Amino acid sequence: MRDFSGDHRWLSINTATVRKSRGHDARLTDIIEDCARRGIRAISPWRDQVAAAGLRTIANLAKTHEMELSGYCRGGMFPATDPLGLRAAHQDNCRAVDEACELNASCLVLVVGGLPGALAGKPAHKDIAAARTQVRDGIAELLEYARAAGMPLAIEPLHPMYAADRACINTLEQALDVCDQLDPARSGALGVAVDIYHVWWDPKLQAQIERAGSKRLLAFHVCDWLTPTTDMLNDRGMMGDGVIDIPRIRGWIEGCGYAGYSEVEIFSTANWWQRDRGEVLDTCIQRHRGAV
Amino acid sequence: MRDFSGDHRWLSINTATVRKSRGHDARLTDIIEDCARRGIRAISPWRDQVAAAGLRTIANLAKTHEMELSGYCRGGMFPATDPLGLRAAHQDNCRAVDEACELNASCLVLVVGGLPGALAGKPAHKDIAAARTQVRDGIAELLEYARAAGMPLAIEPLHPMYAADRACINTLEQALDVCDQLDPARSGALGVAVDIYHVWWDPKLQAQIERAGSKRLLAFHVCDWLTPTTDMLNDRGMMGDGVIDIPRIRGWIEGCGYAGYSEVEIFSTANWWQRDRGEVLDTCIQRHRGAV
Repeated sequence: MRDFSGDHRWLSINTATVRKSRGHDARLTDIIEDCARRGIRAISPWRDQVAAAGLRTIANLAKTHEMELSGYCRGGMFPATDPLGLRAAHQDNCRAVDEACELNASCLVLVVGGLPGALAGKPAHKDIAAARTQVRDGIAELLEYARAAGMPLAIEPLHPMYAADRACINTLEQALDVCDQLDPARSGALGVAVDIYHVWWDPKLQAQIERAGSKRLLAFHVCDWLTPTTDMLNDRGMMGDGVIDIPRIRGWIEGCGYAGYSEVEIFSTANWWQRDRGEVLDTCIQRHRGAV
Repeated sequence: MRDFSGDHRWLSINTATVRKSRGHDARLTDIIEDCARRGIRAISPWRDQVAAAGLRTIANLAKTHEMELSGYCRGGMFPATDPLGLRAAHQDNCRAVDEACELNASCLVLVVGGLPGALAGKPAHKDIAAARTQVRDGIAELLEYARAAGMPLAIEPLHPMYAADRACINTLEQALDVCDQLDPARSGALGVAVDIYHVWWDPKLQAQIERAGSKRLLAFHVCDWLTPTTDMLNDRGMMGDGVIDIPRIRGWIEGCGYAGYSEVEIFSTANWWQRDRGEVLDTCIQRHRGAV
């Protein structure tokens, strides 16, 4: 396992972590400058942040700072109630692939979606199996496009507490079943993003990481699980503040040959998003060295 | 699949559902009387409610009303930081078995516990694998006692969002692995309680229900998953108000030969616990007939 204690060359900042500074929306250009100033070599930005700043602006700024993109957040949200909705999702996902290419991201992360309408509190139906079929079909279709564009797709299994409204792929095993089905040759065009927040609890985690192997481990996201967790979406902890044995999981990942970035992704309305961005980034660096 | 639409003979009320009436703590004796008055034939009471009312009182009252116990809530909480803690948990669980026998419950439900101290916000360590080993060993030891007493133990896999603090057995597959290990003969002394709130999201649910079979399906709990869910513990929905396809899951359960009660277990600080108990019970009856 790589020694992270001496530097932070393998730290990436998912820009949702510093989406807000002192409670105010942050500009992605400012985030990138602050990361560059600290020698942070990689980020993973969100589409809305990129759109707000301008795609070319961000692509150029990343180039200027030789900043890599450990991923691009995010494609997905495949399920819909009708063919028109499915088509719109596909087209939007193709645009996400194009943007990821423009930004030279290492992969497009897929949060696959749940029951149509559920995120808005109005689920159109209760058939999660049907949603999963739409997700598989949607990934299959997008994979053709992404493969031609040379952009790997990383399915991110989300914690089961998001099964209804955000992603109906909820375990690494399930994500890898989709990979086996759609890319049996393990070409590298389709893989997974392992975010420990979503998968840490899984008794089959180690076995499934080994099953994934380096060809399918496209991204590794870290934060921590707090006890208690006061909000189901926006109460993630800083690495070291919760109950996840992060080094153990990183050991499994790297034992399979993963040698990419460790990307910090923290949604935290009440705590980290209330702090100054510099403090948050400095803390990420410190914890990356000591708690990851 | 049984037709529930014409009566509610297979309805059981987990007494946590009416733990509070109009926001005030309810007495278990009153709950039982109100259930009996409505022709509800079964309940599943909690230990603290029984203790407050008196074990003999409740045993006699249940007998008077010919009220069955679809389960007794709950044993478990096995993990500890030292041998003394493990011993105390075992002794308390033996008492729970004794009480379940006295009450003539059909099984003792086990919520197995998570990381020691986590429920109080002070996790003693981060080794969930170690906690799981303690759980398995704890169940093994308790099984000897429960088997001699003739009281089946029902492991309840809890939703992964409770892995840290309430139960580190989080899927039906994992629970059944423990059953296979500790009771390979499928004697009926060890099985599972399937609560749809905890397992509805699982892509392997149907397969694992079939794996369990009637010998290991000891209890079936229903409520619903709301979108959004505003509290991780106490925002469960009434059957029909959420996204779970309950009849489909009941079909799988009954397809395996399960012919016991459908037990309503709803924790709901802001909604159902604020209502009048009679209204809640009447709603349970109505939804049992139409949405389960």
